Amino acid sequence: MQQRAKATRTAVIEGAASIFEEVGYGNASLSDVTERASVTKGALYFHFKSKEDLALAVIAEQHNIVRVAGEQIAAAGLPALETMIRMCRTFGQQLLDEPIVRAGIRLTFEASAFNGDVKGPYHDWVTTMEVLTRQAQAEGDVRHDVDAADFARYLVASFTGVQMVSNVLTERRDVLKRIDDMWRFMMPTLSPAPQGPESLSGAPEETQ
Amino acid sequence: MQQRAKATRTAVIEGAASIFEEVGYGNASLSDVTERASVTKGALYFHFKSKEDLALAVIAEQHNIVRVAGEQIAAAGLPALETMIRMCRTFGQQLLDEPIVRAGIRLTFEASAFNGDVKGPYHDWVTTMEVLTRQAQAEGDVRHDVDAADFARYLVASFTGVQMVSNVLTERRDVLKRIDDMWRFMMPTLSPAPQGPESLSGAPEETQ
Repeated sequence: MQQRAKATRTAVIEGAASIFEEVGYGNASLSDVTERASVTKGALYFHFKSKEDLALAVIAEQHNIVRVAGEQIAAAGLPALETMIRMCRTFGQQLLDEPIVRAGIRLTFEASAFNGDVKGPYHDWVTTMEVLTRQAQAEGDVRHDVDAADFARYLVASFTGVQMVSNVLTERRDVLKRIDDMWRFMMPTLSPAPQGPESLSGAPEETQ
Repeated sequence: MQQRAKATRTAVIEGAASIFEEVGYGNASLSDVTERASVTKGALYFHFKSKEDLALAVIAEQHNIVRVAGEQIAAAGLPALETMIRMCRTFGQQLLDEPIVRAGIRLTFEASAFNGDVKGPYHDWVTTMEVLTRQAQAEGDVRHDVDAADFARYLVASFTGVQMVSNVLTERRDVLKRIDDMWRFMMPTLSPAPQGPESLSGAPEETQ
């Protein structure tokens, strides 16, 4: 029985994600969702009390999907800088492949429409990237005079804009290239060696 | 008479901006706008045929305000890199000072709600920044191996994310600091000299 409730909840979230992704928060109706998810209104209301509640559940599920992928990358034990780069690329790939991720991001940008508090996911990512930046500094891949907290905040903000503008201008067709460009333009500010990515493996400079 | 019509149009746009900024596209009603602007419904409909039409007019007015400020900065004849930095800072300051700018940016992010095509302003800024990047390269302030088109696109995307995340996390209290951080982190990728902004005035490197 509990398993069945869980399956229904998942079906509702997937149906909702599909509708929200297509028409956005404002134009989505709960009847569209029940139809898409093939569930009754009663089943939907058993799990979610409002459209807002459902939108927040889609955002939470999206954040969870991306975070789990990030944790898998972190578990591989690569250098921290490489981990950060892979996390961003994987997030970009998930935007292309996973309807729930696309829906969650669309809802995050539209959150002002339902007064949704979307600070949480941003804070999580800034914290994760700050920890990884410090680790990359300890590993000699990032200059010690880079402020890890400021850089992490910048990275998350920049990534947010890069994928958003890619969506507006090319419907994400160029999102992976633009994420790679972002990292290319970021490398020289991080690199302990003066000339950027090609000398990343060189000895860290101790000047300054 | 024409002047009066123009004054009414301006009042409607200002009233609409104030309402859109407060409650967003989805929750705004045209009666709120007429009340805020102290105009009749007839006067509003004389100028705008729908809420969507009005939202697009606010976005156009916002883009115009920021563009005019940008043109004034460009007219000062400063080095192109300095011009780019000042344009970004001024845009940030306008987000703090000008309700129409805040409303236009909120509507740009919510544009999916009314199928608004907001590519235009992004394209304009990317083009402006690309021209300035090439000029900065000619002036010796930006490395010649930086792809001007890719960098301009990155700069506009990054700026978009920086001001957006500042709004989500701090209601823009830190937007000017975050824009300065952005430029600080961008400098080393641009600078012809190896060690960042402090050596910007040094001779351009011709290696590579």
